[in-house]
Amino acid sequence: MTGGTAQRLAGIELGGTKTIVVLGDGTRIVERREFPTTTPDETMGAALAVLGEWNRAAPLDAIGIGSFGPLRVDAQAADFGTILATPKRGWSGAQILAPVRRAFACPIGVDTDVNAAALAEHALGAAQGCGNVIYLTIGTGLGGGVLLDGRPVHGAMHPEIGHVRLRRVAGDAFAGVCPFHGDCIEGLIAGPALEARLPAHPADLDPVDPAWDPVGMDLAELLAQLMLTFSPQRIVIGGGVANRQPHLIARARDALPGLIAGYLGDMDAAALSRMICAPTLGDDAGPVGSLVLAAQAMG
Amino acid sequence: MTGGTAQRLAGIELGGTKTIVVLGDGTRIVERREFPTTTPDETMGAALAVLGEWNRAAPLDAIGIGSFGPLRVDAQAADFGTILATPKRGWSGAQILAPVRRAFACPIGVDTDVNAAALAEHALGAAQGCGNVIYLTIGTGLGGGVLLDGRPVHGAMHPEIGHVRLRRVAGDAFAGVCPFHGDCIEGLIAGPALEARLPAHPADLDPVDPAWDPVGMDLAELLAQLMLTFSPQRIVIGGGVANRQPHLIARARDALPGLIAGYLGDMDAAALSRMICAPTLGDDAGPVGSLVLAAQAMG
Repeated sequence: MTGGTAQRLAGIELGGTKTIVVLGDGTRIVERREFPTTTPDETMGAALAVLGEWNRAAPLDAIGIGSFGPLRVDAQAADFGTILATPKRGWSGAQILAPVRRAFACPIGVDTDVNAAALAEHALGAAQGCGNVIYLTIGTGLGGGVLLDGRPVHGAMHPEIGHVRLRRVAGDAFAGVCPFHGDCIEGLIAGPALEARLPAHPADLDPVDPAWDPVGMDLAELLAQLMLTFSPQRIVIGGGVANRQPHLIARARDALPGLIAGYLGDMDAAALSRMICAPTLGDDAGPVGSLVLAAQAMG
Repeated sequence: MTGGTAQRLAGIELGGTKTIVVLGDGTRIVERREFPTTTPDETMGAALAVLGEWNRAAPLDAIGIGSFGPLRVDAQAADFGTILATPKRGWSGAQILAPVRRAFACPIGVDTDVNAAALAEHALGAAQGCGNVIYLTIGTGLGGGVLLDGRPVHGAMHPEIGHVRLRRVAGDAFAGVCPFHGDCIEGLIAGPALEARLPAHPADLDPVDPAWDPVGMDLAELLAQLMLTFSPQRIVIGGGVANRQPHLIARARDALPGLIAGYLGDMDAAALSRMICAPTLGDDAGPVGSLVLAAQAMG
């Protein structure tokens, strides 16, 4: 745009525990509402009420939705924009896109919350200028969004990076806490896993405590695998665990050259610090991402 | 094209042990020459001589090159089309694209041999109609090409799927044979690994011998990981080991539902048989892929 008024965009970040609805002057957040994610009807109803209010003040140009998954992201599928089978009670089969479409005639974009966050960091944050980008969130769960040539990866479903099985550290017998897979990476290093695994609450444990060693190695195994498969220029790591325990990222960075063993070319500390970083947009990566989805829906 | 003459295309499949040069009526191979891959000068010289001969008979419209890697595939890089550091003697830094460019003014496409094979199966073979495609070759080495939305994945380098570290089967102590990583997946299930690991030569070992069990499980771990990260609609598996030991793919398919544990939705035997399959083009996937690269270079 060359001057003039930015688009009036709105976004919904539908998270597993809370939902954030934002109004954007373009992709700049100018107003925000937050509420707990409860039942689908109640939660989508609350989001629609906020959008309706903003739309009455001045018509919205487009709406973006970044949702927790698993979510049908194939626009050709009959159940596009629907939550797939999930252990989250009441949400299997919940329609996310359809109620917004019924209420608003403007363009509407929808993708996973982590793809939205990746788009935000790509457009405005730590991954600007990078085509292949991974956004990881390590919090209550572990999820990953992936952009290749700047576009979100979908496919048969969408990546479920949190549930990969990785090589375990020799001698580490922690069984993991994932109800599906036990010791997949989410079952090893997301919040509930750390509470079960560490000798003290993560917040109370000294960052140099050796109990962190296998946690850092597990994260390094994930990063090595992602580097070998997606060939990313940037891996942005957000989420509560990553924000509160930045030493884990440092530990993983230190272990990576040993794991990659010279195979991917230059892999010195400076290159790894550039490649693996925190989100510039912080906790706003998700909500800003929903505005980026809105902007992209306008074509 | 609606009638008329197809493009006169040529392709080079530069393999680790042999090189195949093909002439295409469009992407249909009408002539082929094969010779061993020796030094860069000798090998590229032989390929250029064949191309020159065909070009004199009638001008080539475009040329495609599918090369073993690691290869610089970033068209913006100064060393685009150059082999990167490789244990293959004499080939580190070898220019693949430059000598062809010097000799021919027509459009020239270049990518990895496995991305080329993936493009061929996508255009003409087992992955038609699928956006997200993985082409694995399991032979002397293990390599993978990846298409997302039909386009090859590049990024910081390109995927190096053969060198991921996966969860080992409990009790399996085989150390692996990869000179970089020991028991990465190439070090566990490519040809040289099987010769070191099995109690008899792979060709002489009964397909039902339990010594194959951990090999099939290792392949299943790779496929599970690829499904969770790339969300492919199709995984096409070629290469000498896969061709000669189809029971390995059957074993891996059988193990997958247990590994994925219901996480990716429908994963019954019929769905897995469709998703994981042999290349329709067989050993021609690579050479045909070089012709697809040529066609795409014409824009």
